[in-house]
Amino acid sequence: MVGMRSISSPAVLREERAREADRPSSQVAAFGADQPLRLDCGVDLAPFQIAYQTYGELNAERSNAILVCHALTGDQHVANEHPVTGKPGWWQTLVGPGKPLDTERYFIICSNVLGGCMGSTGPASTNPKTGKLWGLDFPVITIPDMVRAQAMLIDRLGIETLFCVAGGSMGGMQALQWTAAYPKRVFSALAVACSARHSAQNIAFHELGRQAVMADPDWRGGRYFEEGTRPHRGLGVARMAAHITYLSDAALHRKFGRRMQDRELPTFSFDADFQVESYLRYQGSSFVERFDANSYLYVTRATDYFDIAADHDGVLAQAFRGTQTRFCVVSFTSDWLYPTSESRSIVHALNASGARVSFAEIETDKGHDAFLLDTPEFVEIARAFLHSAGAVRGLVARGG
Amino acid sequence: MVGMRSISSPAVLREERAREADRPSSQVAAFGADQPLRLDCGVDLAPFQIAYQTYGELNAERSNAILVCHALTGDQHVANEHPVTGKPGWWQTLVGPGKPLDTERYFIICSNVLGGCMGSTGPASTNPKTGKLWGLDFPVITIPDMVRAQAMLIDRLGIETLFCVAGGSMGGMQALQWTAAYPKRVFSALAVACSARHSAQNIAFHELGRQAVMADPDWRGGRYFEEGTRPHRGLGVARMAAHITYLSDAALHRKFGRRMQDRELPTFSFDADFQVESYLRYQGSSFVERFDANSYLYVTRATDYFDIAADHDGVLAQAFRGTQTRFCVVSFTSDWLYPTSESRSIVHALNASGARVSFAEIETDKGHDAFLLDTPEFVEIARAFLHSAGAVRGLVARGG
Repeated sequence: MVGMRSISSPAVLREERAREADRPSSQVAAFGADQPLRLDCGVDLAPFQIAYQTYGELNAERSNAILVCHALTGDQHVANEHPVTGKPGWWQTLVGPGKPLDTERYFIICSNVLGGCMGSTGPASTNPKTGKLWGLDFPVITIPDMVRAQAMLIDRLGIETLFCVAGGSMGGMQALQWTAAYPKRVFSALAVACSARHSAQNIAFHELGRQAVMADPDWRGGRYFEEGTRPHRGLGVARMAAHITYLSDAALHRKFGRRMQDRELPTFSFDADFQVESYLRYQGSSFVERFDANSYLYVTRATDYFDIAADHDGVLAQAFRGTQTRFCVVSFTSDWLYPTSESRSIVHALNASGARVSFAEIETDKGHDAFLLDTPEFVEIARAFLHSAGAVRGLVARGG
Repeated sequence: MVGMRSISSPAVLREERAREADRPSSQVAAFGADQPLRLDCGVDLAPFQIAYQTYGELNAERSNAILVCHALTGDQHVANEHPVTGKPGWWQTLVGPGKPLDTERYFIICSNVLGGCMGSTGPASTNPKTGKLWGLDFPVITIPDMVRAQAMLIDRLGIETLFCVAGGSMGGMQALQWTAAYPKRVFSALAVACSARHSAQNIAFHELGRQAVMADPDWRGGRYFEEGTRPHRGLGVARMAAHITYLSDAALHRKFGRRMQDRELPTFSFDADFQVESYLRYQGSSFVERFDANSYLYVTRATDYFDIAADHDGVLAQAFRGTQTRFCVVSFTSDWLYPTSESRSIVHALNASGARVSFAEIETDKGHDAFLLDTPEFVEIARAFLHSAGAVRGLVARGG
């Protein structure tokens, strides 16, 4: 767990952020040259490290572990103050004492994904073999690679079977991948606001973001750290684009409508006249203080490559054949990034494979972001699912 | 009309494009210092010019003129080969001999919008007062400004009443603005795939595009022509973002799905593995050869400011009170940029103001772009509307 820190200036933030990649404010599992991670691209990655946070206690039976998987630009700081931004944990609506992912009952693990920039090995990390930053020499990774690295962490922690793997967005994809790759190691899975493969429109938005980063001359072909620059403008634009996809039209209308920023009349200029413009500019500029541009390329690429069915003759149900995992799939009505139709495809495949699955489509105008926000119906569904699975697993007294 | 040209190289294209802003391959209506255009920002713009194309013949009664209004990055070349790109006119599905906007029956006028870059005065034009390019010294304009400039062109052509004003997207906004500003001068109006005000999401996507342009160091604070640079990367990214909004998720899926570009397996790189990536990159790179970056800032800003109701105590119906214009409003089911709900708001306001209005929502998966594509049901609706209005106006034999 990370204590309080005073945040002083952007320069300090940048300095702290850079430090997080190699020496994170987290526990670290280091894997040496003798424990390579075989990547989908064919490369054996070694050595490497996975940064992670834990909350609660592993029980004697080692049966109460929950792995939380984070979204695209999330990290391991699921339920503690963020060491760079000072903000609360990104899923404190769900994780904590008495919350659905109850830290007094379960042992919660959240690791930074492979390719991330908060302490797990990625393009912002130093390559121990060369002493130089990985940058674009880091191999292109996939969601299955991320999950294989997590499995090595879980092995290291001495856990055979996870009580649950839970995540939203890219985190939901990892949860699904866990159940497909390690069916016997996942007792239950909570997959929220996600899909089993990236659609053409999903790829299009990510490609837009990558092009924005790579169009920034300060990106320097990925060598911006060495050259003392940062592609903040390009990464900011990429974040603005992504952020639009995280909100629904209705949510933007409710939050901002056509309201002007601190004025009544238009300025007839290219200043941020409208509140929605100021908001997006802020989202772009604050993001670049906490996230690495190259890492953004890698994690977007990984999700674009994601297509569980592709490894199973194009039949999604085959990925889950014979599964004993209990699934809970959740979507949000106004999520146009990973719409309910994507979740229904997952549910149909799970039904076809004979899996135990419950599905909820939650009515909300908050868009994709609903999974991160305090959405009471979602919190209650997660609570009921975990409670029910926990009872079967003997972690919760039935009816208790 | 413009004849055939051979297109040789990007350098020649750029040279031709730059020339179009001051000396377009079109007719030009020049307005001198004695005919200023009072802009919404309070500036009197003079002198200025409007570039336009015409097709067909104005009849003796001057009653058969149709003004076609173009979309954001369209231009006056509605039914002839484009002088820069060599491509066919952008609305040849609708405009031509025997087409709904029949050039053998009607006198079709299409002008480049004020603020555009194809010969109407805009940021890429030379300011005659200074001999320098306008650049960001050009005043910020609005859709009503564009329409006032068009009205001056129509005056110049000796036309009192337009038989029809027709347009899609930003062109549809202009058509609506015409009926609100000059109710007695518009016999009929065809407003397609548009809205009566830009939504927060619409503004967000435009702001993203502007930030992409302005983030490009080659933009040089808008002085790229003087400094010998071009913000092609930023403008390309802006175009990629816009292009995603022009297509539906379903259309992207049908066109590209997750198909790879010229290969079977992923490259595990940041090359354009997927066809949709290549397509977007092409859309970005081809756009910058024909469009001016500053002009993109101005036309997006104009549409963001658009809100007809704002000038009428927030009540859209009041904008159309007492109108005698016959309206046809058309939307497309998969258009998420200007969804059917926006068209319904227009229709409700028109109904409330007692206007004659017909409304069609056309089932298609093509998204916003459907208004530019060969969408047979849309073409037939336009034909029927023009035919019916033409019969009332005495331009078409009833039943003929």
